[in-house]
Amino acid sequence: MNYLKAKKEELSALLLSLKAKYDEVLQKGLSLDLSRGKPTAEQLDLSMPMLGKSRTVADCKSASGFDCRNYGVPLGVPEMRAFWSDLTGIPADNIIVGGNSSLNLMYDTVARAMLYGVPGGERPWCREEKVKFLCPAPGYDRHFAICESLGIEMITVPMKADGPDMDAVEALVLDPAVKGIWCVPKYANPTGVTYSDEVVTRFASMKTAAPDFRIFWDNAYLVHDVYNEDTLLNVFDEAKKYGTEDRIFFFTSSSKITFPGAGVAIMAMSDRNIAWVAPIWNVQTIGHDKLNQLRHLEFLPDKAAVKALMARHAEILRRRFDIVLDTLEKDLADTGVATWTRPNGGYFVSLDVLDGTAKRVFALCRDAGVTLTNVGATFPYGYDPDDKNLRLAPSFPTCEDLALAMSVLTLAVRMAALEKLLA
Amino acid sequence: MNYLKAKKEELSALLLSLKAKYDEVLQKGLSLDLSRGKPTAEQLDLSMPMLGKSRTVADCKSASGFDCRNYGVPLGVPEMRAFWSDLTGIPADNIIVGGNSSLNLMYDTVARAMLYGVPGGERPWCREEKVKFLCPAPGYDRHFAICESLGIEMITVPMKADGPDMDAVEALVLDPAVKGIWCVPKYANPTGVTYSDEVVTRFASMKTAAPDFRIFWDNAYLVHDVYNEDTLLNVFDEAKKYGTEDRIFFFTSSSKITFPGAGVAIMAMSDRNIAWVAPIWNVQTIGHDKLNQLRHLEFLPDKAAVKALMARHAEILRRRFDIVLDTLEKDLADTGVATWTRPNGGYFVSLDVLDGTAKRVFALCRDAGVTLTNVGATFPYGYDPDDKNLRLAPSFPTCEDLALAMSVLTLAVRMAALEKLLA
Repeated sequence: MNYLKAKKEELSALLLSLKAKYDEVLQKGLSLDLSRGKPTAEQLDLSMPMLGKSRTVADCKSASGFDCRNYGVPLGVPEMRAFWSDLTGIPADNIIVGGNSSLNLMYDTVARAMLYGVPGGERPWCREEKVKFLCPAPGYDRHFAICESLGIEMITVPMKADGPDMDAVEALVLDPAVKGIWCVPKYANPTGVTYSDEVVTRFASMKTAAPDFRIFWDNAYLVHDVYNEDTLLNVFDEAKKYGTEDRIFFFTSSSKITFPGAGVAIMAMSDRNIAWVAPIWNVQTIGHDKLNQLRHLEFLPDKAAVKALMARHAEILRRRFDIVLDTLEKDLADTGVATWTRPNGGYFVSLDVLDGTAKRVFALCRDAGVTLTNVGATFPYGYDPDDKNLRLAPSFPTCEDLALAMSVLTLAVRMAALEKLLA
Repeated sequence: MNYLKAKKEELSALLLSLKAKYDEVLQKGLSLDLSRGKPTAEQLDLSMPMLGKSRTVADCKSASGFDCRNYGVPLGVPEMRAFWSDLTGIPADNIIVGGNSSLNLMYDTVARAMLYGVPGGERPWCREEKVKFLCPAPGYDRHFAICESLGIEMITVPMKADGPDMDAVEALVLDPAVKGIWCVPKYANPTGVTYSDEVVTRFASMKTAAPDFRIFWDNAYLVHDVYNEDTLLNVFDEAKKYGTEDRIFFFTSSSKITFPGAGVAIMAMSDRNIAWVAPIWNVQTIGHDKLNQLRHLEFLPDKAAVKALMARHAEILRRRFDIVLDTLEKDLADTGVATWTRPNGGYFVSLDVLDGTAKRVFALCRDAGVTLTNVGATFPYGYDPDDKNLRLAPSFPTCEDLALAMSVLTLAVRMAALEKLLA
């Protein structure tokens, strides 16, 4: 039944029957979680061979014979930089290897810009009267949290089916206070959108008023296909055509390739940006865990090994995405009160419910024991102006739990819509 | 021969004979390094059992059953916090576990103070007209590099045999622009001094003009005895007596217990400071490598295990310290142109040569193939006003190389002194 076209009596009758179902769910005392984009244990098991080896002294040497147990090579073991070069198409010299958290690299990069400024800028960002970032939304809450924590004003940019609304972006970057933008260019969190060639080219070619404008290009899901493989242009290649390489700060990690708790993160940037960051990096740290870099290299020597591993991740994730998408289709397709994304990869499905009902859906789910990502988390300042977006994270629960949680969710979506329409 | 009391002809004759020896050394084409406080391979081998185990899924769980391969517990695995509590006498709730680099934690803590300010302060330090730090010197070059990088003015405080000159410290902290001091309270880098009870108590009880003054207490060598064990008061216990716990930022790591390249670093602070840092920490990172925390816990379950391991480190280091101290004694004791420290632990011996000759000693050694730590590195801005201090790092070379390097060094010290006295 299309709720928007149905008669009031029909809606009332339906709400009554859904409430009865919901009461049954309440009796079950569920405890399910759809909120966290964590890999499930089955995925983590795939990388156990990385830990399944008794390491000898010889195994602690890099290819050049450097003892990775000791201090040294602060920018990363050379072959680890080469590995990421192979995977990203970015020269190894432009890659710096961090610890296990690309978020940490992103936070530090913004903090570094605040304290020191970046090449092309006239002063540290903390000396500017105001610093603003563009935040395509729905987007990743932890990006927004960095801005909020550091006092950077966030401006929401709508997400479209092929990336951020570039007309809006191009207009907004004419404000010299706009210093940056957050991008998850492939299988974006939470919409699953991959930026089209046109969007990437417009990012590379657009005119910005701030000479020190930076794109925080968080390519977290670069090899994380679930169904088909989306293709994404190499942003540095595009930027080179327009002489704008300095505007790109690139980040990724193996968190969702091997282990979120013990992966290897990198950042990549132009020669000029590397020359800026390396001396500061060398003051900040003695370098990150090199034995973990060796562990990764043994388990994943090249791109082919990564692709083979990611195909196994995809099998596991596909079962879960199928459950989410099938349940949404079955329960909500004909109601007219919900739309959702059908990503080819990544970790999320983005669900838009009837305007003004997302918080109610969240509460109904919470009371029935199903945890959703906080409503608003996908928007700057945690505020969804339309109160309609929900981020669904299918990876972590078992398939059985996921199916149960999804049935509660779609029940809640329908109830909340009916309540709203009948109010 | 005491150079300061000898006749000029005697000195000239001696210099001539030393020059002949030096020429012989030059012919050897040596390549030796006394500059880096890196453990030697034999020390790193001690911790190989940490890597010598094939890890199963069950081995990836914390005591509470948390899967350490995945996201979560950003402040550190609870039993790792408890381990460090056991070792430091600081409550586990006041300890945060970082990555492998305590330097990284220190840099980030200063950067955080710059960007956000600290409890008790009125504004972020970057909003102050000027921020000054006290730098006991000779001290640790990487502490000074953090200040220099972040534009913090450094004021040198003399190091005495029982710690920093506290009369100077107590006078200088009456300047409200003085926001911090760097301390290596046990086996200080490079003097090897352990702070006396009186010094620790004066740090805890002193009046500071800045309400947001912080002591960066880098207890890098807390269990790193080489000869006898120096005792150091628990600075938090002292501070509590005076209500000054908030002024302590405590740091240490397992870098020189297990592996410099793959250790576990921590910071510790008062409840009020923890309440300040934790929310920022949670924005900065998803948490550090938890599998490496588990590896450490297996290998070093408690303080007794650490003590036993450190006793084996001490055996290895003692051979090297013996070589350094014996050579200094044999070659320089009666010259009257050099003094040096005789630490009970840590990684360094601090050598003071005749005023105005340290750079010459460095150059003579360099030309003969012996690398010393840069002269001045142990002082703020890399400038030793007396041109006399040299940091000797005996740990990394083999005993044979170390003996050779030391003989070149003492030759250079004598030659440089004679040149100066005869000039």
